[in-house]
Amino acid sequence: MSHKKAYVALTDVFTRLYRYQHLAAMAGWDQHTMMPGRGSEARTAAMAELGVLMHRTQTDPALQGWLAEAEQEDLSDMERASLREMRRQWQHANLLPEKLVEAKTLAGMRCEHAWREQRQANDWTGFLANFREVVRLSREEGALLAAHTGGSPYDALMNKYEPGMPSAEIEGIFSDVKTWLPGLIAQVRERQAGESVLQPQGPFSTAAQRALGLEVMRRIGFEFDAGRLDISVHPFCGGVAEDVRITTRYSEDDFTQSLMGIIHETGHARYEQNLPRDWVHLPVGQARSMGIHESQSLSFEMQLGRHPGFLHNIAPLVRQHLSADPAASDPAFDPANLARFYSRVEPGFIRVDADELCYPAHVILRFEIERALMNSEIEAEDIPALWDEKMQAYLGIDTRGNYKNGCLQDMHWSDGSFGYFPSYTLGAMYAAQYFASMRQIYPTLDEEISIGDFRHVFAWLNEHIWSQASRWETGELVRRATGESLNPGYFRAHLEARYLA
Amino acid sequence: MSHKKAYVALTDVFTRLYRYQHLAAMAGWDQHTMMPGRGSEARTAAMAELGVLMHRTQTDPALQGWLAEAEQEDLSDMERASLREMRRQWQHANLLPEKLVEAKTLAGMRCEHAWREQRQANDWTGFLANFREVVRLSREEGALLAAHTGGSPYDALMNKYEPGMPSAEIEGIFSDVKTWLPGLIAQVRERQAGESVLQPQGPFSTAAQRALGLEVMRRIGFEFDAGRLDISVHPFCGGVAEDVRITTRYSEDDFTQSLMGIIHETGHARYEQNLPRDWVHLPVGQARSMGIHESQSLSFEMQLGRHPGFLHNIAPLVRQHLSADPAASDPAFDPANLARFYSRVEPGFIRVDADELCYPAHVILRFEIERALMNSEIEAEDIPALWDEKMQAYLGIDTRGNYKNGCLQDMHWSDGSFGYFPSYTLGAMYAAQYFASMRQIYPTLDEEISIGDFRHVFAWLNEHIWSQASRWETGELVRRATGESLNPGYFRAHLEARYLA
Repeated sequence: MSHKKAYVALTDVFTRLYRYQHLAAMAGWDQHTMMPGRGSEARTAAMAELGVLMHRTQTDPALQGWLAEAEQEDLSDMERASLREMRRQWQHANLLPEKLVEAKTLAGMRCEHAWREQRQANDWTGFLANFREVVRLSREEGALLAAHTGGSPYDALMNKYEPGMPSAEIEGIFSDVKTWLPGLIAQVRERQAGESVLQPQGPFSTAAQRALGLEVMRRIGFEFDAGRLDISVHPFCGGVAEDVRITTRYSEDDFTQSLMGIIHETGHARYEQNLPRDWVHLPVGQARSMGIHESQSLSFEMQLGRHPGFLHNIAPLVRQHLSADPAASDPAFDPANLARFYSRVEPGFIRVDADELCYPAHVILRFEIERALMNSEIEAEDIPALWDEKMQAYLGIDTRGNYKNGCLQDMHWSDGSFGYFPSYTLGAMYAAQYFASMRQIYPTLDEEISIGDFRHVFAWLNEHIWSQASRWETGELVRRATGESLNPGYFRAHLEARYLA
Repeated sequence: MSHKKAYVALTDVFTRLYRYQHLAAMAGWDQHTMMPGRGSEARTAAMAELGVLMHRTQTDPALQGWLAEAEQEDLSDMERASLREMRRQWQHANLLPEKLVEAKTLAGMRCEHAWREQRQANDWTGFLANFREVVRLSREEGALLAAHTGGSPYDALMNKYEPGMPSAEIEGIFSDVKTWLPGLIAQVRERQAGESVLQPQGPFSTAAQRALGLEVMRRIGFEFDAGRLDISVHPFCGGVAEDVRITTRYSEDDFTQSLMGIIHETGHARYEQNLPRDWVHLPVGQARSMGIHESQSLSFEMQLGRHPGFLHNIAPLVRQHLSADPAASDPAFDPANLARFYSRVEPGFIRVDADELCYPAHVILRFEIERALMNSEIEAEDIPALWDEKMQAYLGIDTRGNYKNGCLQDMHWSDGSFGYFPSYTLGAMYAAQYFASMRQIYPTLDEEISIGDFRHVFAWLNEHIWSQASRWETGELVRRATGESLNPGYFRAHLEARYLA
């Protein structure tokens, strides 16, 4: 052991951090699913105390020496990757003064808290008053991080969610998407204009929707002895790898969003549930990035969940749980109708309600605005005009004066998570690339999906993504999995195949 | 501020501990109500890490100096009481070496884990193999604590749950109880021999039982915006004062245990929910002792819940939720039958199923055995014979060879909680004394209870117990509340009034 004393000392610290993270994750999950209203103040205090403890642990002066010493030790390849990921976490924690972290957390909480009512009231001016401080502190954070990582402040912020991906690369990818996406949307809408799509009519009881959700989760491999499904206002995947907690929300009028939401979160969950158990207590054994995490949820939701064959396969289950008279033939529950329903393209105001084709337009718009904002090319007050202009250009939608369903709709900016948005579309692109790769190896993949046999899908994801955790940098992970680095051509090909076939 | 610098420094440390305790309480609650099986190992590791952190915080060498300095500072009466309670907690944590705490926790976990199957298998010999180590370490703990507190090792252990109560005082009280209780039980059983009592016939759905439980909790003042009701195998009251989590378990054959269990836990919960909010982050603002805690659950369960007037009042509610045909007059749901049912006296093997009259006999037997065991007057292998002898003497029950329903039935000994058992009967005695005191002030109390008006009960408990938290030592608390120190005569009078009237 003594030939890697520093590495072992580091694993002790990061194992301790993982245990603290466990407590934080469970307290956070509880806060959003179980906690009664008056528990909030004590919970916030307890979680903040834990946050301070974790930050202290990550900034313990002993770590710097151990990180340097460990570089000289006789480590295996995996241990070397482990050391790299420890350094990344340590670096991030140590670049930011505790005062800035605290100030940003507070400003974000204040802005987000007020945003809930300001959004309802369409009150952009009121929002701006708090938001300016969030912008100021986020720029400061970006500048401090960029001084170390190089690149623009926005690059440095994006690096938190997708390490190693420069914003210039995203810009290139998104520029290309903008050349063909609006046309594709128009073309698909014209094709779909004559289609008849029936919206299944409720009410659908929460209990029946939950039973259906659980059954679908079972079919797509969620492990119930290592996780749960509960309810929260904003659906999420939380908990820890050994005990993954996903949530949904039910509307008795409409089961379709909850059902697809559950499939989406199950994708996140299976990634977590299949991380390498021997390494999961260390950074190298944890999820690679938010882009890769979204590539799992979108592999499940977009590639699998909205696959016409998948929908044909689960349609009887949906009818059985939710149709008022399962024996009768309500045409809204027909497999073909469900498949048409879930591939309907229709530009709208709201990102989270967007279909597969319009979603990237919402993301590109946000990317362009937040990048300019963090790089001080625009100011916060410039956002609405830019929003209006881009929504018109990309989706043909008029948002003037409609802040509520425009630039006030997301939580990400109010809490200062600049740089997160690209993860969604990167995830969708990675997912398309994975499935193209799978189809090369398994030519009958689509037939298998149509009969509910997902073994090849899951075996591929497990071998190439889940079991690899953070062993490789993102680019290398994707190259090893698919034979090439991120190639957005697969995403375009997937959309054209699905929507123009 | 500077004239009480040390006191302020102490409040910072104890506030931090309270926040850690919040995380521990929630992780523990989740473990017993929500956690899927495979989450166990990671949870145990996270909670143990938190335990180490809390112990380190309590044994920080700076505390000793601050405790001494704070004695010289200009403190208010409440602050002085606060300092006393801080010292008590600090003392307890610092008297025990970390090694012993760890060894005892591990031995207790091992013994308890094996006990679950050994109990089912009636395997006393197998149990003994692990239990000897728990006994050895508990005696060591008792000796170390006694070296500081004086008294016997058992006194020192009991002091954890009921500070300031010497076991000689309990012995005196219990000796007296033994002179009249067996006779009283016999007398009551003779009176009840001719009574007809109907057991309501199920099935009673879990949903209906839960709805009834929630309604009863509401009537007896549980605050749902600061707490929850959930399910666990072993019912408990957990969480924190700002967010109290109680649990029950439902049997579809029999609602009566769950209903009374919920009333019991609501008593614990209301104590917590009404602790003084400005002080609850410090030891002085927390529950006085386990004896006083049980006095709250038993005020609710025994004094209120089994009060014939209370049962008459809630009987229509019970019928409405649980009778197959609420309009029909199933005589099992008659108020008078419910009252007879809940006051039925019948000696049995199991403590937790015991009626109000037999319960003290179960406790006295355990007190006598655990006291002799901790003071090294007997050894672990002597337990079964003593158990048989005392069950025969106090309850007329033959337990020979029946370890499963005899000395293997409780969890307390397997996990090393020697000294806890007396809290139950002390609690029952305190509760009887409180209600005697209330009846002095409010002569129409029983009529009020019969019409569902509990305002005087709760006002009295709030004024004298809940709001007082740990401001006074237990003896002083009881004297201030009732005008005299613990007087078991009230308990006997209560039993005679209820069961011989």
